Amino acid sequence: MASWKPLLLISLDSNAHLKHSAFFQLGRDLSLSLPVILILIQQLIDRRQSIEEIQHCRFGEICWYLTESWEQFRFKGSIDIIVATNSDALKLQKREKAWFASSLKSQLQYLAPTPSFPTIAINDPGEEIELDPSEGPVDVFCLLIFDPDQVDYLNSRSNERLIFTSKPNGSSRKLWMSQQINP
Amino acid sequence: MASWKPLLLISLDSNAHLKHSAFFQLGRDLSLSLPVILILIQQLIDRRQSIEEIQHCRFGEICWYLTESWEQFRFKGSIDIIVATNSDALKLQKREKAWFASSLKSQLQYLAPTPSFPTIAINDPGEEIELDPSEGPVDVFCLLIFDPDQVDYLNSRSNERLIFTSKPNGSSRKLWMSQQINP
Repeated sequence: MASWKPLLLISLDSNAHLKHSAFFQLGRDLSLSLPVILILIQQLIDRRQSIEEIQHCRFGEICWYLTESWEQFRFKGSIDIIVATNSDALKLQKREKAWFASSLKSQLQYLAPTPSFPTIAINDPGEEIELDPSEGPVDVFCLLIFDPDQVDYLNSRSNERLIFTSKPNGSSRKLWMSQQINP
Repeated sequence: MASWKPLLLISLDSNAHLKHSAFFQLGRDLSLSLPVILILIQQLIDRRQSIEEIQHCRFGEICWYLTESWEQFRFKGSIDIIVATNSDALKLQKREKAWFASSLKSQLQYLAPTPSFPTIAINDPGEEIELDPSEGPVDVFCLLIFDPDQVDYLNSRSNERLIFTSKPNGSSRKLWMSQQINP
């Protein structure tokens, strides 16, 4: 049994002084800017943008290149989007928790004009947008959960490449296998 | 008429001290590590890997996040792959030029064991791999050319977003239009 997690932890640690090492890119029209949560990767998104393509195809890739250590991590996995109308109480709880964990500034973004629409100059700003901090997530707020089932690790310095593949294990814990492949 | 190129030049300049600003990620299973050539983006690839998906779908995205200036560039465009059997003499010339512009170390990678295949330990390394520096590109060497037709620019500091769209102009030069959209 082998896991890519210690590898990632060591890499992140050795690149910790670089601000950009906490950023990564999710294929399929989404860029993420959250520190990675090992095992599950969570991202908050706005329902009004970006999710159509994901809803069509629930698979994604996250690619990560660490410039200092010349390492690349490429995650393939499934994407779950938890919207306001989800029927799973546990998932809705996760969404609510993520909402309260985000800053007021970040919460206010979900009340801003619809992303990607042409900007309209408003002369009369009308009412100020207000948000009751005790209220739960707004409707357009979604929680995206990325669950990797393959990790492709490349070390360009040592010219080594490892592929980690997960196997369902009956329980919720995944069993990871690794194999050395040609870079 | 508006162009995203001056914007990109200024951003690259202000982020030039950061090593990682020269790296970017091409969606669809390829990571690039070349400084961007404005107008056309070129990348050398190995025919034995990565190109199947691109050959199937000749569109791609390049996403670029500059951590220092909080700017994001997202390019959408078409991908052309120039393989050894291409019938266009001009394209083959570009491929040859790219081969001779790359280092010997980089050229030797195309003679290495097939990427992504399980690594086999060899006790007898046999002959040393040799390459005649005067000879042209090896068969598996391909040149990938990415030609953007939409650029989505986001400045997270000023909270501004611009979308640049190209229009065919009869000539080979593209005409770019820009519009301010909601971030």
